[in-house]
Order: sequence, then structure tokens, then C-alpha cells
Amino acid sequence: MKPTPILDTIKRPEDVAKLDSEQKKQLADELREFIVDRVSKNGGHLASSLGVVDLTIALLSEFEPPHDQIVWDVGHQAYAYKLLTGRKDKFDTLRQYGGIAGFPKISESEYDAFGVGHSSTSVSAALGLLRAKKLKGDDGHVIAVIGDGAMTGGMAFEGLNDTGHFSENLTVILNDNQMSIDKNVGGLSRALANLRSSTKYIKAKSRVERVLLHIPLIGKPIARFIRMIKTWFRLLIRRNTPVIFEDLGFQYFGPFDGHNIPLLRKKLRIAKAIDGPVLIHIITKKGKGYKLAEENPSSYHGVSPFDKEKGVQPSTTKTFTNCFSDSVVRIGEKYENVVAICAAMMTSTGLANFRKHMKLRFFDVGIAEEHAVTMAAGMAVNGFVPVVALYSTFAQRAYDQLLHDVCLQNLHVVLALDRAGIVGADGMTHQGIYDISMMLSMPNVTMLSPCNFAELDRMLEYAVHDAKGLVAVRYPRGGQSEILAGIPSSDGIAPRVIREGSDVAILSLGVMCEQALLAADELEKNGIHARVIDVRCVKPCDISTWKELLSGISDVVTIEDGLAQAGFGSYLLSLLEEEGEMSHIRHYQSLGVSDHPLTAGNRALLMEKEKMDDKAIVETILSWY
Amino acid sequence: MKPTPILDTIKRPEDVAKLDSEQKKQLADELREFIVDRVSKNGGHLASSLGVVDLTIALLSEFEPPHDQIVWDVGHQAYAYKLLTGRKDKFDTLRQYGGIAGFPKISESEYDAFGVGHSSTSVSAALGLLRAKKLKGDDGHVIAVIGDGAMTGGMAFEGLNDTGHFSENLTVILNDNQMSIDKNVGGLSRALANLRSSTKYIKAKSRVERVLLHIPLIGKPIARFIRMIKTWFRLLIRRNTPVIFEDLGFQYFGPFDGHNIPLLRKKLRIAKAIDGPVLIHIITKKGKGYKLAEENPSSYHGVSPFDKEKGVQPSTTKTFTNCFSDSVVRIGEKYENVVAICAAMMTSTGLANFRKHMKLRFFDVGIAEEHAVTMAAGMAVNGFVPVVALYSTFAQRAYDQLLHDVCLQNLHVVLALDRAGIVGADGMTHQGIYDISMMLSMPNVTMLSPCNFAELDRMLEYAVHDAKGLVAVRYPRGGQSEILAGIPSSDGIAPRVIREGSDVAILSLGVMCEQALLAADELEKNGIHARVIDVRCVKPCDISTWKELLSGISDVVTIEDGLAQAGFGSYLLSLLEEEGEMSHIRHYQSLGVSDHPLTAGNRALLMEKEKMDDKAIVETILSWY
Repeated sequence: MKPTPILDTIKRPEDVAKLDSEQKKQLADELREFIVDRVSKNGGHLASSLGVVDLTIALLSEFEPPHDQIVWDVGHQAYAYKLLTGRKDKFDTLRQYGGIAGFPKISESEYDAFGVGHSSTSVSAALGLLRAKKLKGDDGHVIAVIGDGAMTGGMAFEGLNDTGHFSENLTVILNDNQMSIDKNVGGLSRALANLRSSTKYIKAKSRVERVLLHIPLIGKPIARFIRMIKTWFRLLIRRNTPVIFEDLGFQYFGPFDGHNIPLLRKKLRIAKAIDGPVLIHIITKKGKGYKLAEENPSSYHGVSPFDKEKGVQPSTTKTFTNCFSDSVVRIGEKYENVVAICAAMMTSTGLANFRKHMKLRFFDVGIAEEHAVTMAAGMAVNGFVPVVALYSTFAQRAYDQLLHDVCLQNLHVVLALDRAGIVGADGMTHQGIYDISMMLSMPNVTMLSPCNFAELDRMLEYAVHDAKGLVAVRYPRGGQSEILAGIPSSDGIAPRVIREGSDVAILSLGVMCEQALLAADELEKNGIHARVIDVRCVKPCDISTWKELLSGISDVVTIEDGLAQAGFGSYLLSLLEEEGEMSHIRHYQSLGVSDHPLTAGNRALLMEKEKMDDKAIVETILSWY
Repeated sequence: MKPTPILDTIKRPEDVAKLDSEQKKQLADELREFIVDRVSKNGGHLASSLGVVDLTIALLSEFEPPHDQIVWDVGHQAYAYKLLTGRKDKFDTLRQYGGIAGFPKISESEYDAFGVGHSSTSVSAALGLLRAKKLKGDDGHVIAVIGDGAMTGGMAFEGLNDTGHFSENLTVILNDNQMSIDKNVGGLSRALANLRSSTKYIKAKSRVERVLLHIPLIGKPIARFIRMIKTWFRLLIRRNTPVIFEDLGFQYFGPFDGHNIPLLRKKLRIAKAIDGPVLIHIITKKGKGYKLAEENPSSYHGVSPFDKEKGVQPSTTKTFTNCFSDSVVRIGEKYENVVAICAAMMTSTGLANFRKHMKLRFFDVGIAEEHAVTMAAGMAVNGFVPVVALYSTFAQRAYDQLLHDVCLQNLHVVLALDRAGIVGADGMTHQGIYDISMMLSMPNVTMLSPCNFAELDRMLEYAVHDAKGLVAVRYPRGGQSEILAGIPSSDGIAPRVIREGSDVAILSLGVMCEQALLAADELEKNGIHARVIDVRCVKPCDISTWKELLSGISDVVTIEDGLAQAGFGSYLLSLLEEEGEMSHIRHYQSLGVSDHPLTAGNRALLMEKEKMDDKAIVETILSWY
């Protein structure tokens, strides 16, 4: 890697402000170089961070965090910010257990004003920070930086609406890169596109002015008329600003080149001087400065380690997402009433192929999980079976839509929950560990958890063809191990014994079957014969099936890739207790994630820490003997 | 009541279309008369239903449900629609157990295209209905009717954005009555206000046209210039439409008088003829036709039975909401860092007094629960303690904001959950029975449930002053019984014995203490001495305290105003099991609402049906003896 002499001198954000223009430009280059180098080695979010390097430098030139507070929406673009606010030396620990987080995090640095991860929260959070400052008589500035993708989330609109109404002194920077993770959708994105081409209006303006100068002045009426025209013209020019923001009470400036640091600084100074809500619209290029990422920003959104020169190579390992991708195409071709819906993540959720084959039955609704689910409910009413593909963590955003619009009406909607369970490097805000608890509280729900690809395919077809109500199918990030691949798939959704044993039962959900089978091997060495049961269906629980499966067993361990309390284990426990079945059971222990925020880390490591791996199962059972 | 000769002839919606203009006008009067009469007798939502009587008639004159589908946002305004679509004879059962619902409900009538209750879902649902129709080649129309209040919910924006982008053939009627339940807020509401005064532009337009006719034509350049002006002028007029909708891809028409049936019909015909998204903006008066409601629509939003002539009288019974209202003022005056936040329900949540006394520290953010919670989180970061007052059922909308923005960051935010538990007449969509399950799945949560007013006051102060993280205080609709009032209040939040006994323990949460105490009396007659424990704190559970409280007890009943499974009872069970404490317990039964949608009905009746009243406690315990 090239040396980074300027970057090396930056210890605190104040050091950025001291640089001259040339040095700032060089700093931007060095930051890009550094980010590409480190992300190619360790993995992380690349394209969005490269896009806002210049903005970050401009912000730190004009504002003084931590007194001024900057909220980065989503936060995967904040690498340059982290590097310039004292975290360069720790940058190699990014996204690792005990290391610095992939997203801004209050507990990590006083410069991180608000923790983020999910989209579209920045305006609300920033407004809260600002209102608190105002009440305290603190004159510090608050800035929200939000992408055009995140702007399609309804919550951002709610925040703008409130800010505009009360004319709060907030600066919103709209970072327009024409992308969510995939290409952007939504009427708003079209409005922004119009704006981007608004240079033609600026040209028109000078043309008109020239004409105005040459109109002969024939008496008063014409003079008055020309005054009128001038007024209208001002209004007309204003028409070509995105009045959507002005309607909400913001002063709009833009669009500007988001890679021109001196220009950005000028606009930020204007925002600072204006008392009231200001929206600055800048155009940036995702992946800026790294050619491969500029050309294909989707592939360089979140990446695993790769060769800087060759770029990201297609992965050869098949994942659950790939499996879902194939299954949903197969099922869509088989059943004509299947439609697929995603929220701005067509590629990441594996729906790109479905779109290719059945374009009319595919819907990308933008970063708008709430709308995705209720739109699906509407389609279900009129006879379709929508498959809504969301990451588990983002499904949290549609809790009420799932409950109020799907479950209470008992509509048949399939929810494909990708990245369920521990996700690893994305960390705390992205762990898919809450979905089981969410679904357990809702009526008319079936929740399935396949242990391998073959099971995912069958369960998805069951969900579409045989089930009713809301059917959630949850599967993890990554692929299947050999052990998991070896588990045969079955008909239906009933729990089943996948390894016989008579001393103790291990009830394992989804891919946790691997840990259960490994533990059973280990226990066998200790003379303990463990029965391993693949739970398959979290809910509903047929208690008579469970009675049969647990017959002769007095010790039970449940293990799930979710919360230990308020999860499947405690749900089954309460059903067994209610049926008087617990009188036969001597020990019952639910293993899973403890009741605390779970930070980033390698999946195996986190499972060990959370005492939810094969070793923990063995220890638990041995402690009973 | 006056006779309703025209209304009496309407058996199906087609009958409305057959009436002439005069008859339609009379029908509107009769509907208002009928609605005021019935709601004054039985209670219900009055003001909003009166506001859309004319619109309902216009819609049924131009569209043909069930083939055409109408989605009413929130749905409390659909009484006229219900009366005209075959439900007049059952109207006296409105909002009662087994009767017709207070909101549209698919299972009730083929004319109810989509079930509603919570705000801002209509555009998404209608778009789903429409997309399904389109795929099936069905040319029926789909219409969403949404209030200007509901339009401030971010989900509505998400729906408009998706509809506009794909130019879907949806008709959205913006029913602008300048109110949520309370007066509207938000930048959008100001934009709409500008529009309402836009007649001045229409006047300007004719003035300009007159001038244009008198400009002398001097050669080609001027002719071209005038053509340019005309074009600009069209754009300029368009500027004075709420470009927010046009920016999103809608054709906008309005604003129009929403009480002029012939005019409304004309505009609906235009919408029908246009292929693409259309938004028709109408102005209506909440409470229209009933003077008392027109003058004070907030008081006539949802009402209990009242005297038609005298109007709604202030209630003399003190409710938990009143108690909260007093407490939050007292606490706000004591601690200067307390702020109060609501989502468009200042009066209903009891914050009007807080606003009166501490206006600068009060924030009404519009119908925007997500934004409310994250804005609160921002204020918490900068040193304030926000008290966010929401109905339990609406807090569901902010699940992810509570989890991702408050709990994961361990910010100190107080959530005042009004209408927790069974709510009665509002029915299925409004039951406050999911909040316990929601909170149990989140880390860094304290959840408190006071059994009476004095406890609410103390717990609220504890929540603000002593606790950390997210502190939810849940309390029910209505007041406290004498039995509840008689329970003394204690310091802290630990569970406590409120009646001694050694045979069996009844663990009761919040106001369910009444049922527990009544059951204990009844059991005493059978020689069974029940220990009644007021749970007070759902989470966290100090297991050593529970060990002590349950010492010597082998039979346990838990009772809560929430879900029997996935609630406090099963949570405590799993903790006791984990600690090996269940070996002393012979029976353990959790009582609460079963895992199904809970429809409307009198609270006592529903508690009986759900087997969660004193009788059910007694029966459960007697079955063990």
C-alpha cells in the first residue's frame, strides 16, 4: 500500500480543519486508498464509504464534533469518519469480536452521536439530539446524513415532517447516489432524477433573461407585465427544486457535486448560517475512486476479503440464500399465484432470478418493510400467495404490519427470513435473533426452520402450497455443513428424531442440529445416549407429537439460534407444563442467546461465548449426571 | 328519531346509485341523523363518520363494490359505508361481542376489502389489491380513502412512493379535515393549508389570461416568447398544487368541497378515466351535520353513550389516563430534564396538561410512532428523560425503534403504555395484549404494571428517576375498582405479597390483582388459603425474590392482562425451571388471553370467555385439589 502521510497526522477531527485545500484533497485520496486496502483484507462495507470521503472531510472542516453532532443514516458509510475521529489504529479490528463496530456506536466513541444500523432513522435521532440541545441552551449544530435510498423509508418522512413543521434548526444532507443496496425505486427517486437533470432549467434561465432584455417597453402595462413575469420566473425556477422538501418546510439547496470539498464546505457554511431546516442535496458516486466498485457498486456494498487488483470474485460456496433463490423460482414456476416481494434488496435476498423469470410477479418496493408486508397482505386478499423476502433483522420493522395486517386477518403470506440467527460481523444491530420471539406472540402463525437446503426447499413449498396464515421460514447466513447436508429431508413440518437415543433429548432448531449431533457424538463417548430431535416447526406445537417424541425421556435440552428466554425452548416448556407433561421431566434447559445486546464476532466464537454450541450442550447434560 | 325513508330502501350498495341527486342529498341527511342517534345510544366513533357521509354516497354512485374495492384508512369513518352495504339492521350490535366491528373487517362483509384499525395502512393495502387485480386481468378499480392525519404516518408515504414509481392505476382520496384525533401537526399539514387557500392562484390565473390577450404581437421573437410564457404559466399553476404528490408520481386534483356530492362524483369519474395514480384532495368537516361535534370534533371522536341534545358531558370517573396526566405533570415539574412526547394523541393519552404547564418540553410528532420513539432516543442521548405516551396497540408500530434505537443502545426512555390489556369495544385491532411479549424479547428493559393509581404515580417516578434503559409502564383503559384502590402502594418495584396464604400462590399482574383477590376470597370458603402476589415488575425478574415469595408453595397460578403463552407467566416459568426451582412446584398454570385474535366485547365478558377472571382462577386451583 502507498504511504498515507497526511492521514497519519490526523489524531483528532480538529486536525482535519487545519489542513489546506490541497492537503484535504490528498487526504481524500489517502483515505480511499486506506479503506480499499483494509476492506479488501478484512471485509466490510466498501462502496458507500468511498462515496462520502469528501463529504466527511468537508463536514469535519466546518463542524466540531462532539459538540456538533453528526448522525450517519444506516452508518455503513462511516469508515472515513471513524478513521478521522481517532480510530485509525484500531481499524484492523473492524467488525471483529471486541473490535470496533462496522457502524457508528455511542459506546465506542464520543464522536459517534447516535448508533445506527437499520435504515431511515437519522432524521428522527438528529431531531431528538437537536431538541435536547435547544432546551439546554446549547448552540451546537446537528447534521443528519441520509442516502436517497434511506429516504424512501417512511420513518425519514415522519422525521422531516416534524422537523419542517416546527422549523427546527436541523441540517439534512441528502447523499444521492441513486442506489439503495440495489438500484433505487420509488416516485421519490424519479423526482430526484428530474432534479439531477435540472441544469437544463438553469440554462433556460439565462436564455429567458436575454430575451427579457430585448423586449421593447411599450407603456406601463407591459412594464408591469414584465415585473410579473420576473416574479413568476423566480417561482418557476423554484418549481424545479424538489418541492417535496420545501412543502415539508425545508430550505432546499442543490444538487451539488458531492466530491468537491470546497463547494461542499461553502454549502455547509450556508446551512450553518440559516436558522431553520435546511436540506443539502449532493450527488455522489458509490465506490468513488476504486474503479471496480464504481462500475459495479452493488457487488462492492458489503464484501468479504478479496484481491484488490482482481476485485471481488463470485463465491463458489452455496448459501441458504442461493438455495432460496432456486427454490422460489421453481415454486413460482409451478404455482402461478406466487408473487415475490422485497424491500430494496433484490440481489441480497436472492430474488434476482425470480425477477428474471417472472418479472410481472416481482415487486421491489424500496426500503419500506412496513409497506412491503401490507402490500403483500393486499395481494393475498385478492388470491395471490406473496413471498416476502426480508432479512430477519429488518422484519422487525414490520412487526405491526405482520400482526395487524396479516395475522389478525389470517391472510396467507409467506415470510422468507434470511440471516436468521447470529450474523457475525455486522454485529449488534443486525443479529437475527429476535424473529422467533416476534412470531410467537402473533396468532395464526406457522414458523418453520429448515436444517439444510433440501429442507428449505420443501418447507418453502409447504409454506406456499399447504399452509395458511402467516408462514415464516427462517434460515441463516452462510451455507450448510457436511453434517447438515447429510440429514435427510422429510414430508410435512412435524418435528422428527434425527438420531436415536434414550437417555436425554436434544431439541435443536434449524442449523443448530449440527451442534446437537456433535454433542450427541461426544455424549456417546461418556456412555450417554442422546436422542436428537429436529424441531422444524417452532409454532404451532402439536403437543401430542411432542409427548411421543419425548416418551421415556427425563432430561431435555433445547437449542436455538435465537433468544434462550422468550424463544422456542420456553414456549414448548410452557405448553408442556400446561399439559402436565413436565412432571415426567427432571431437567429442562433452553440454550440460546442471553438477554443482552449481542455484539459482532465470528459466529462460532459468539456461539461459544453465549453457551450455545455443542460444548455447552455436553456440559449442560454432563452436569446432570 | 326522524324517519329515514330513503335509507330504509337501501339494501345493497347498488341501490344508492339508482337515487337521483335530491334523494342522495336526503340520504346524506338521514345517514347523519341515524349515525348520531345510534352512536349517542351505544357509543362509537362519531365525528369522522359524519365527515365522510357525502363522500361515501359519491363513491357508491360511481364505483361498484365488491368488484371495485375501497380501503378506508383507520376505518373509524366507515359507519355510513357499513350502513349502505347491508349492515343497517345489525348496526345496533356495533362494537359489541358477536356484533359488527367498529372498523371494516374482511370476515364481516364482502364489501370490506381490507381490515383496518391502525393508521396509514390504506395505500399499501390498496396497492396490493390493485396489483393482484392487474395480474389477474381484472379491471376493477381500487380506491384508498386516507385522512390528512394518517398521511403523516411514514407508511403512507412508502405506499405513495411505490405507487407513483410504477404508475399504478390507484385512486387515493385525501380526506382533509385538518385533524388527527387532535389538531394536526407536521410540515405536510402546512403544505395542505397553503393549498386550501389556493383560490387566490386561480384568481391570478384569469387575470394573467386577460393580460396575455392584450399583448401586442411584435414579430416572431415575441410570439415565441409568449408561447414560452404560456408554458411556464401552466407549470406555475402546477406549482401551486401540492407538488409533494406530483413529485411522487401522482396526478393531483383539488382541493374540492367534500360535502358536494355531484362535484365529488364528477371528480371520481375523472379519476376512473385516468390510467395512472390519481390523488383527489377533498376538504371535509369532522362532525358535519351535528353542531356539537362540528364545534368540538376532538370530544366527538370516540364517545361513550351520551344525550343527543346535551352532548357529551365530561366524565366524572377518574381513569388511569387521568392519573397518568396528573403524575406526569407532577414529575415534570419536579425533574427539569423530563420531556413528554406523543403521536397525535395529546388529549387521549393525557398529555394536554403537561403541554399547558411545560409547553417547551412537550412534543406532538403526528401519527408517527416510529419517529416518536427514535426522536425520544435522540433526546435521551443528550441528557433528557423522555416520557413517550402511546396506546399499547400503537406501540407495536415502533417495535424496531424500541429495540434498535433505545434498547440496544441502553438509552433511558420511559414508555407510558395506555390501554394495555383488553380494551373492549374497539376490538381486535386495538387490544393491548401484545406489549408484554414485545418487551420480553428486548434487552435492557424494565416493564412495570401498577395495580392502582397510587402505584402508577410511584412507578412513573421510579421509571423517570431511578431506572435505566427502556422503562415501560403499562396501565389499562378505565379506572380502578374499590378493591384495587384499597391495595396500599409500596416503594421500589419488587413483587410483593398483598394477601397472605400458604396453600397456593396467585401471581397477578397490574389490575388483575382484583381477580386474584376475589378468587382468594372464594378459595378461602373452600378452605384453601391463597397467597396473592402483586407482580408489579414483569422484567427483569429477580429470581431470589421470587424464590422467597414462593417458599412453601407448590401450586402456582399466574394471571395477566396479556397473552397466556409468551407472556409473564411463561417467562417466569422458564426462569424458575432454569434455576431448578420448578422441582418444588407441583402445578403451574398461566392464565391470560389465548393465542387467537381477540374480537370486541365488554371487558368482563371477554375475560370470562378467555378464562382469565376470578372464576377461572378458582376453577383452575380447585381442579388441583
